[in-house]
Formats: sequence, C-alpha cells, structure tokens
Amino acid sequence: MKNKAITSRDEDFAKWYDDVIKAAHLATYSSVKGCVIIEPNGYAIWENMQKVLDGMFKETGHQNVNMPVFIPESLLKKEAEHVEGFAPEVAWVTMGGSKELEERLCFRPTSETLFSEYYANTVKSYRDLPKLYNQWVNVVRWEKETRPFLRSREFLWQEGHTLHETPEEAKEETLRMLMIYKKFFTDYLAIPAIVGQKTEKEKFAGAEFTYTVEALMYNGVSLQSGTTHYFGQKFSKPFNIQFSNRENVLENPYQTSWGVTTRMIGALIMVHSDDNGLVLPPKIAPRQVVIVPIKNEEAVLNKANEILASLKQAGITAFIDTSDKSAGFKFAEHETNGIPVRIEIGPKDLEAGKVVMARRDTSEKMDVTLDTNMPSYVKDLMEKIQNNLLETATKRRDELTFTAKNMDDVKHIMETQPGFVKAMWCGDTECELKMKEIRGTKSRCIPFDEEQEHISDTCVCCGKPAKHMVIWGIQY
Amino acid sequence: MKNKAITSRDEDFAKWYDDVIKAAHLATYSSVKGCVIIEPNGYAIWENMQKVLDGMFKETGHQNVNMPVFIPESLLKKEAEHVEGFAPEVAWVTMGGSKELEERLCFRPTSETLFSEYYANTVKSYRDLPKLYNQWVNVVRWEKETRPFLRSREFLWQEGHTLHETPEEAKEETLRMLMIYKKFFTDYLAIPAIVGQKTEKEKFAGAEFTYTVEALMYNGVSLQSGTTHYFGQKFSKPFNIQFSNRENVLENPYQTSWGVTTRMIGALIMVHSDDNGLVLPPKIAPRQVVIVPIKNEEAVLNKANEILASLKQAGITAFIDTSDKSAGFKFAEHETNGIPVRIEIGPKDLEAGKVVMARRDTSEKMDVTLDTNMPSYVKDLMEKIQNNLLETATKRRDELTFTAKNMDDVKHIMETQPGFVKAMWCGDTECELKMKEIRGTKSRCIPFDEEQEHISDTCVCCGKPAKHMVIWGIQY
Repeated sequence: MKNKAITSRDEDFAKWYDDVIKAAHLATYSSVKGCVIIEPNGYAIWENMQKVLDGMFKETGHQNVNMPVFIPESLLKKEAEHVEGFAPEVAWVTMGGSKELEERLCFRPTSETLFSEYYANTVKSYRDLPKLYNQWVNVVRWEKETRPFLRSREFLWQEGHTLHETPEEAKEETLRMLMIYKKFFTDYLAIPAIVGQKTEKEKFAGAEFTYTVEALMYNGVSLQSGTTHYFGQKFSKPFNIQFSNRENVLENPYQTSWGVTTRMIGALIMVHSDDNGLVLPPKIAPRQVVIVPIKNEEAVLNKANEILASLKQAGITAFIDTSDKSAGFKFAEHETNGIPVRIEIGPKDLEAGKVVMARRDTSEKMDVTLDTNMPSYVKDLMEKIQNNLLETATKRRDELTFTAKNMDDVKHIMETQPGFVKAMWCGDTECELKMKEIRGTKSRCIPFDEEQEHISDTCVCCGKPAKHMVIWGIQY
Repeated sequence: MKNKAITSRDEDFAKWYDDVIKAAHLATYSSVKGCVIIEPNGYAIWENMQKVLDGMFKETGHQNVNMPVFIPESLLKKEAEHVEGFAPEVAWVTMGGSKELEERLCFRPTSETLFSEYYANTVKSYRDLPKLYNQWVNVVRWEKETRPFLRSREFLWQEGHTLHETPEEAKEETLRMLMIYKKFFTDYLAIPAIVGQKTEKEKFAGAEFTYTVEALMYNGVSLQSGTTHYFGQKFSKPFNIQFSNRENVLENPYQTSWGVTTRMIGALIMVHSDDNGLVLPPKIAPRQVVIVPIKNEEAVLNKANEILASLKQAGITAFIDTSDKSAGFKFAEHETNGIPVRIEIGPKDLEAGKVVMARRDTSEKMDVTLDTNMPSYVKDLMEKIQNNLLETATKRRDELTFTAKNMDDVKHIMETQPGFVKAMWCGDTECELKMKEIRGTKSRCIPFDEEQEHISDTCVCCGKPAKHMVIWGIQY
C-alpha cells in the first residue's frame, strides 16, 4: 500500500524527507523565510523528547532557568573565539518601538555569555558550586540554506550550562551529559548513535574540547545530533567569574555547556521512516495505539471502548478513530502518521472472537483473540517494535560503515554509497581540509579509546604517522 | 522571626515585592535592560503552572504547536487595529548576520497574524474545524517601565488561537477558556480572581470583545492576570481564511485567542507572601515539604529518610536539608522560599516519639506523634493551607472591594486605600478617561449578568443613566 503523496526513499531521499514531513503533518512553512511552523504531530514528539530528557537532567541534579533572549553586542564580544564563530550568523534587533537602540542586541544563538555574566554576579565561594542549570528555549542562527528540523533560522533546544570547582568535575559533567544523550538516542529514539570527541577544527567556538553524538541517516549521511562542551576557564576568565576556593584563594571556575535540538525530529524521520510515511519508536510516539472500528456499530464500538479503557489504564496512549472515513483510508492515515500499533475490530472479528493488530514497523498483521490480556500483549508488541527499530537501524549503520586506507578508498565510498568512514588521521587540519574536497567529507568524531580501531599506520590523507582513527562522513 | 533582608510589606509594598523576589531567588537582573533572568526557584513555579494548565488545555481538546518567533512587517500590518495597538511596542530585527534584511521582522508581541496566515493555508472545509491550537513561547513588548514578572520586555506565556465554524462556538470557547483560567486561579493559585468583559477602550487590539481575569493584590492594586478574546471575522477576513460551510458556501470562520503569562508568578507573590518572604499554595509549590534534621545524627537521619520515603511514595514533593547550616538558619531560608510545610526532627523529638510540623502560612507549629500516618497527615495539612490561603485572600479582596456612587467616593477610596471599586457606568469612553485622572483608575471589567449589582441609577462620572456596574481599579 504505497502512499502516493510520498516519493520513494530510494529514488529521491531529499524529496522523500519533505514529503514525509508534509504527509504526517509534522511541520509546514510560513511567510517567515527559513523558519518552520511545527504542527501538532511534530510538536507532540518534541514534548515527549523534552519530558524524557528533562527527567534525566533533573535526576542528575540539574535545574531549569530562563535567561533573556537578547544578548547585548558588547556581552557577545567578551570571548573572542566565541564571537568570531557566531557573529556572522546572528540576527540583530536594532529598534525598540520607533526608537533606534543605543546598543544593538542579538537574538541568542546560544547563551554562554548570558550564563557567564549571571554566574559572575552570583557565585562567590566553592560552597556555591557546582551550578547545574539548563534552559529549554528558542535560538536563532541566520542560516542561508535551511531544511525543516535539520537547519532552520529559529529552532528549539535545551542548553545546559554548568560551573564547577575543578577541571575534573567539569570534564566529568561533559562526559556525563554526553552519555545521557547517547542513552536517550539508544533507548528512546532507537538510534544507534556514536559518540566521541570533535577535532580542533570542528569543535564549538570557544570550547577547549567538544564531545558529539553522531547519527547515520538511512541514506548514509551523518547528522550531528547533540554536543557537550568543556570550556575550562575560557569564559570564566574574560567574564571574571571568581570563587574563593577551599584554600580561600580566588580562582576562576570550570565550565561546560551541552545541547540537543528539534533536529532530533529530523533524525527520527531519516533513520526509521519509510515510503508509507513516519515510523516512530513506541517509547517516543505521542500516540502509541490507534483502534479502528471497521464499522461504527454498537457491539464493535463497545468492544473498542473496552479495549481502549484497558490500554489507557495500563498507561498506554491509545485512541479510537470513529471518524466517518473508510477503514482503508484510516489505515493509510495512521500509517503515515507513524502510530506504532493499529488494532482493527470489525463485526466479523467479533464473531470470530478476535481483533487484528498491525505493526507499523514491519506491516505484519496478527489475529489476537479477545481473551488475551490486551495491555500486556500490546506492551510486549511495542517492546518488540522498539527493539526491531534499533536493530534495523544498527544493521543499516553497520552496513554503511566502511574503512578507508587512502584517499581513493574515501573517494570511492563517498561517491558510490556514503556512510561512516573509519580512517586514520595524523591530526593536521590541512588533511581535514583535503578530505572536505571529497563531497564535503568532514571528521565526525574521534572515538574514545575503547572504540578506537587500528585501520592502518598512516594518515589516510598525507601518509604521515597516524594519531587516531577518526570517523568521517558527509553531513547535513 | 522577621527576615531582615525583606522590607515590611505595609511599609513599602514595591520594595517588599523586589525584596521577596531577591530573597527567595525567583529572578534577578542581567545587562539586558528590561528583561529578567528567571532563577530555578521562579522557573519551577512556572513549570508547575504550565503542567497544570497544559493538562486542562489538552483535556478540552487543544493541541500544542510552535509558530516562528518573527513576524514580517507586512504580515503584522494586515489587520489595522491590531498593528496600531502593537506597532509602538515591538522590537525589530533589521539585520541577519552582516546583511540588512529586505523586510524587517518584529519579535512576536502576540501571534494572531501568524496563526491567521497558517489557518488561511490549511483550512478548506468545515470538516477542518475547529482548530484548537496553543503554544508556550516567549514574546517581546518594548515596555518603558518594567518590573520583574509584572511587566518585562520579554516574558513567557501561552497563547491559544482557535478557529470555529460559527460565532456561537467561538464565543463559547472564549468563555470556556476564561472559566479554565478562573478555575486555575481559584483551585491552584488560591487567588479569588474576578472575571468579566473589558470595555471597548480596554479590549485587545483587534478583538470584538475581551474577557478578563482580574486579581486584587494585597495592597489593593489590580492585576490583569489573563485574557480571552473573541475576534469574530476580524482576522479571518483580511487574512482571507475561508472554509466551505455545510451549505457548501465559502465563509470566513470565527476566531479566538487567550493567554496567561509569567505575570501569574507576580500575582502569587503579591497576594500571599508576607514579611518573611514567599508563601506558596501547596498545589503550585515546586517543593511542598522540607524535612530539617535538627542534628545530623544517624537515628535522626534514619527517621527523616523514612518519613521522606513515605511522603514521596504518596506523591508529595519533599526533600531533606542535611546541609551544615544551623537549624535556625534553615528554618528561615525555607520560610523565605515559601516551602508550605516544614518537618523538624531532633534527638529530643525522637525520644518524645514525635516530630514538629510548621505551617508556612500561619507559622503555627504542632507536635505530631511518630505513629501518625505521615502522608495522610501532611496531605490534610496541605489542604488546610491551600484553603486558608484562598480564604485569607478572599477576605482581603472583599475588605478592599468598595462601592462608589460619585467621583468623590472614588477619589476618597483611591487616595486612602485603593481596591476594587464597584460603580455604575453609562458606557462612554469619556467617563473612563475622567476616572483615569484619579490615580490612573481604570475599568477592570464589566461583571457578567449574574454578578451585576445595582449600586445606583446613574453613571458614577457623568450622572447620566447607567448601563452596567463596572469594577474599577488602579492597575499594575
């Protein structure tokens, strides 16, 4: 049952992506160039992401705050590398009402500067540390090329900003949050992301180092899906954040920041969805089960409502579709919207003492007798779907993970079927720039020691002795 | 135990308000003029407000979306009264990166225009109606005078925007949401707000009529705390939103919007708090119970943890303060922060087989024997506190609600002890303008029929025959 409104994924991936977003009513455009309207189906996914992540942040002692949306130009300029990285892509407010502002304000592209100013005003002693703050807000980066969820001028995200007594604690935090992201990707989004450190060239403007969560899309393109940054004292010094330490000496504290964005919705689509539309992991799906009465007859509706009540009772988010559309139309619609489980009940099913359940991920249909414990059956089924999505995505990622010993290998891979490319690197930025000439290939990350592999002795690019294995990819 | 960091409420209410915000760490300032930083204690209150209200919105069929933060100037100008009302107070983005924009964009002061454009693009038939959308976002209004939570250039709010087939349905929605706000104020915030209709002069720019939730602060000043608007076709016509109705004729649909903001935190403070700091109704308090061990001894801590576990088990948000501050210091700190219930446990209490519980609202202390069912005792106590706060606030509001038959009455009231003033009105804007000369007195609302009272036959101002009883007040 191919959805005609959706281009085939293997034919034209970019068009397929746009079609899925449109068909599943996730987002649409407005007259505001480069920004999207996130529609109810899309926003509900974001709400679920927020709920889970926010719980994880709070469990690890973080608190939410809300900083102003504006950054005065002088404040943005306080850390040199940071402003250099962001100034070219910020939006400037220059007028308030009918008056020109004395100092122009940028719409926050990220809030290190605001948090640093706040910390400078509030932290006095080691007793005030750590500060473990986060905010869920909108940010603006004035991108030229935009794509819904992946890159838009305004996007939604969370940004954690923490301040610590020692470099060790701050580094630990940087790693802790990376691992929370990884867990979220694996356990909830069913995306087998890889993690590691960014190269000097690719790290965040103003960071000492950056860790990253990298996911591979169905088409072999990489998506940077979350980052955590260790700043050391790079902000605390210019912003004059000081605390009297345990030796009663004034010291600049150690800082981190970390964030994930609505881009994760783009990742969900491009990893799991198919030619029939959206496919959502049950653990993040806003609506997990739809019950479709084949006919809106009393006995059928009674049974449907009975099952609905039992599912809801068990904490499953289910609903009945009693609209006057045809059953076939409803099936297609709920498939397009990515509802993980469909329960079909018709008069004939009732006679036969069963319902039909359909899995969105595999399209498999099964008869389930009415004496079954429905909530526990559905929970099992959702667990199977969740696991299957992760396994399928892992298999795809592994199939599209290649090794390269020289530039010809890289070229061949990236020009036939791109993916993650494992290759050795000498550590020079020059070699990264040469890699970029091959369809824009960039280093995704330097995997941590335990994930390091020995592909060859020499740099894939220059042939000099290699320092690390790096994972490379073409990026969104 | 007067908190020395807090000015007396009866001495200097404005200073007291600022002191409470500072002492309870609700918000603070940054270098961004007119904007505040909402700190963890403040933001947690907003999160609770969001959670409760969002649940109420969803129960009544509303869905969340996210519109762009920018409005192109041409879009803002499509509805004449609307732009006239908002243009003088919007912030304009004129530069993206280093380039001047072709068309300047305003930071949304409210999003009727964006929703209208979206609806024009997506609604075709009566089958697409109603549209019941809401968003939780930041907005900017370029105010000259600002006060934390009450009036700041950026604030957080929710804005519901709905579209209906008939005027009746849209009017019903306008009233439904007003009543949800009222219920939220009464049941959660323990604020006895009054509701009614705004006069022509005070209604929202672009609305046919506006309903309002008006609360009276401890000092007798009124606070407009939430509004719902009926637009009729005032946006759907210029924005060309059309649907084919049940007679298959193209028609412009009927629209509403409604919103409440972080201003509600200001209302909470100014209605319930006292000279010792914040007082929070248990149903909205982020932390309901603090357990203070008088000494950090093993037996004491064990009992404290046991009680903590039982409270948490029962869904009460409780925590133990085991910091090395003195017990007296902790008591004062948690009072300042408005924790509704404090449980004190010391070695002597344990010997006597009891704990001490203290109510934040009345400062009353009581011995509670250890064999008590603590969760149910605490729940009862919190209910008492919740009810007491509402009763106290209602009593205060009633004491500060006056009637006036002529301008001398109004003058006398507003210049001695302001409050809500019930007075008859002829319906002329001119009389409203004359009232304004008395310390800025404005009409708060025209109460609904069932709340109308007959104060006199003639307008309080001009002496002509009166149309309604109006509630007047001095406003924030």
